[in-house]
Amino acid sequence: MEISKQKTPPIPGEITQREPIAAIATPTGEGGIAVIRVSGRDSITLVERIFSGAPLTDKPSHTIHYGLITRAGKRLDDVLVSLFRSPRSYTGEDTVEISCHGGVINTQLVLEAVLHVGARAAEPGEFTQRAFLNGKLDLSQAEAVADLIHARSKKAAESSRQHLDGKLGEYVKAFRQQVIDATAMIELELDFIEEDVEFASRDDLRKLFTDLTDSIQQLLETYETGRIVKHGVRTVFAGAPNAGKSTLLNTLMGRERAIVSEIAGTTRDVIDADWNYDGLLFTLTDTAGLRVTEDVIEAEGVRRSRKAVSEADLVLYLTDLHQPDPQDAQVITEIRQQWPEKPMLIVGTKADRKELLKQLPDKHPKPDIEVSSLEGTGIDTLKRLMKEAVLESRDIDTSGLLVTSSRHRDALEKTRGHVHSALRGLEGGLTGDFLSIDLRAALHELGTITGEITTEDLLDSIFSRFCIGK
Amino acid sequence: MEISKQKTPPIPGEITQREPIAAIATPTGEGGIAVIRVSGRDSITLVERIFSGAPLTDKPSHTIHYGLITRAGKRLDDVLVSLFRSPRSYTGEDTVEISCHGGVINTQLVLEAVLHVGARAAEPGEFTQRAFLNGKLDLSQAEAVADLIHARSKKAAESSRQHLDGKLGEYVKAFRQQVIDATAMIELELDFIEEDVEFASRDDLRKLFTDLTDSIQQLLETYETGRIVKHGVRTVFAGAPNAGKSTLLNTLMGRERAIVSEIAGTTRDVIDADWNYDGLLFTLTDTAGLRVTEDVIEAEGVRRSRKAVSEADLVLYLTDLHQPDPQDAQVITEIRQQWPEKPMLIVGTKADRKELLKQLPDKHPKPDIEVSSLEGTGIDTLKRLMKEAVLESRDIDTSGLLVTSSRHRDALEKTRGHVHSALRGLEGGLTGDFLSIDLRAALHELGTITGEITTEDLLDSIFSRFCIGK
Repeated sequence: MEISKQKTPPIPGEITQREPIAAIATPTGEGGIAVIRVSGRDSITLVERIFSGAPLTDKPSHTIHYGLITRAGKRLDDVLVSLFRSPRSYTGEDTVEISCHGGVINTQLVLEAVLHVGARAAEPGEFTQRAFLNGKLDLSQAEAVADLIHARSKKAAESSRQHLDGKLGEYVKAFRQQVIDATAMIELELDFIEEDVEFASRDDLRKLFTDLTDSIQQLLETYETGRIVKHGVRTVFAGAPNAGKSTLLNTLMGRERAIVSEIAGTTRDVIDADWNYDGLLFTLTDTAGLRVTEDVIEAEGVRRSRKAVSEADLVLYLTDLHQPDPQDAQVITEIRQQWPEKPMLIVGTKADRKELLKQLPDKHPKPDIEVSSLEGTGIDTLKRLMKEAVLESRDIDTSGLLVTSSRHRDALEKTRGHVHSALRGLEGGLTGDFLSIDLRAALHELGTITGEITTEDLLDSIFSRFCIGK
Repeated sequence: MEISKQKTPPIPGEITQREPIAAIATPTGEGGIAVIRVSGRDSITLVERIFSGAPLTDKPSHTIHYGLITRAGKRLDDVLVSLFRSPRSYTGEDTVEISCHGGVINTQLVLEAVLHVGARAAEPGEFTQRAFLNGKLDLSQAEAVADLIHARSKKAAESSRQHLDGKLGEYVKAFRQQVIDATAMIELELDFIEEDVEFASRDDLRKLFTDLTDSIQQLLETYETGRIVKHGVRTVFAGAPNAGKSTLLNTLMGRERAIVSEIAGTTRDVIDADWNYDGLLFTLTDTAGLRVTEDVIEAEGVRRSRKAVSEADLVLYLTDLHQPDPQDAQVITEIRQQWPEKPMLIVGTKADRKELLKQLPDKHPKPDIEVSSLEGTGIDTLKRLMKEAVLESRDIDTSGLLVTSSRHRDALEKTRGHVHSALRGLEGGLTGDFLSIDLRAALHELGTITGEITTEDLLDSIFSRFCIGK
């Protein structure tokens, strides 16, 4: 049974100690503490050469030692040195973390001292790459580390937390085991081909393949939600110039973000802002409006606005209750016709001036919500509606496992394609060797998610997106 | 002998454990690691409540423990928890450092979990203030922590390192001991006033007071250098419009910093940039030039330029070798007359075009150095000259102890004044009780430097300048 012997770089329990590398592991800037991480072969004796505290080499793992970092006899900083002995470290290698006083210059001087005695400056993500190569994390978990660091909302952090816990890996491994078992049966039959035995019942295989494609499909359907959770709800403010788009955006953000003025068409370009609501990230895009114009610069603004609406996860169409724009009805109809699935809320603005208002024109679209940025009325309800409009249009709970990476989505789609192809082959009466080709292709795709199958290019493209020091 | 019993809040060895406080101790931003520091009474049991690893309360100091931080049953992050038991910690209190995955949201969630179980959010500098109150650092050392974090050059970091090592404190304590001894003698005499004894010889006292004022004066004279090391050499680029000021500034910085154009007077305002050379910080200020003009905006620029020159530690006066400005000679003479002590280098620019140049006009000031920003010639020499011009004009080695804080300078000046007043009293034959008043005032001032004498206001003003988490 050769089946489970895919090329597997990370073999759990087998640790390689590579050349020592070092980097500042904390964000750049002024802070109380900065941490310099040193990992690899001889990293403990290396740090000991510039450390004037107690000898480090005989100290047990997971202990902390106070002392001075010196270079050429000069005292650089008093630090705490934490020791992690292989394999009980993040990378699996011997690791030293030097906790020094924060500050850009001081931290750099301590790092330079470490590099001076022989550590190499670490590449982006190199510590995590070593953790992966030493079997401490699978590839989907390693990617989740970067996602957690870059998370811009609570839900994004929670989602990457699940990936870091290995939830996606568990799913993928379960899929993989099922495919491995099926492939093993089918390939075993090939060994006994002249006897014409059937180790796997065709009905069982059919059920297995159907269930698998269904399960993978279910997982794939979380991707749109996953994307929104990870990158935010692309929310576009549309409506006539001076409908109050910038003002409402500022009210939601709680601060001055867009330039607001009384001159219609002030917002000449698309403005983006991150806004967190109830754990969910919304990227708010103010637009120049969508009306027909002869002004060249404004026309370009309208073109970009249309593009923003087409890419939006949510459109807020603002209509001025005080001075409703005659084009509103037409533009709203156009949006609904062109993007019928797009969640859109019609927001009546300047509700505080409503007493000045005659009846809305007959054909004027009825607002889903009326707000006053000035008085703050309707704003809380609007926020709730915005969240509901996005989440209810997708019938998925954000607390479950979400596929958030396009890399994982692509691999899952290919897997589903291969399993589906095997299913069709089975139904078409194809022989085991044909089925086996499809199933092995599926195994390959699943293996790329967790990293049983990797290439240099894949690893490079994943880890180069990390920050230095992780 | 009541003399040495000043009000002394920090008594070494006597530790008070205050209410638990917590803060993110690493800089804000995306990084591999973030550290949340928790310090105070019960901080270990407090963290244990949200920590799913091994029990912490029975673990020894200076050990590290892996586990999960959870909140309301939800896994937040897997972390390393470092334990520091009182008094062996930065603050002297029981302290826990939680090392979690970096990233703004994740770190905030872990901090919130710690606050949720009862820690209070720490004020800026509150950890260091507790370290001071527990006698772990004197006040000058505590201030040096902030200086080290905010150091913008290697020399600034080295200088604050000396303060952190307690060098200033040693000087001050030595001064203080001498004053205490003298005061004790003089006040003892007062107890035996009717017997008319002299415990301290007037000659010895005179010598002591003279030596003390001299030593304090020597220390005070390091302040100008200290200020330059700490805040940088204020370097002003002066010269006619289009003399190449912005271009030279950019050449020194090695990148595009100021806007450079061929139109004379492009730099309308003062531009500042930090530049490190050989460990020393220079803050480079580009100016609009100093020529007479009728343009209102430009005239304002000239006014600011004059102000910049008057405040400068070093003036680079640029003169175009190709097209020397007829006003140059006059402006240079004016600067020399108005600020005769000011270090100034006359820099001939555009040396690459020199072959096009006729003889410099007779009265034209001779450049100290000729440079070409285009070809890079003369630039290294200019850098060296800039450093020498600043340091040689002050006859002080930057490697010695420098007074860098205006607070310390003020206290030392007042001390010198009081000792000097005692000296004059002695020479005028004043009685011991009058001398004692001066000496006690001197003791008070010295005590404020190291923090034997403090007030709430003083501590507030010092520690509020810290970042949160330190």
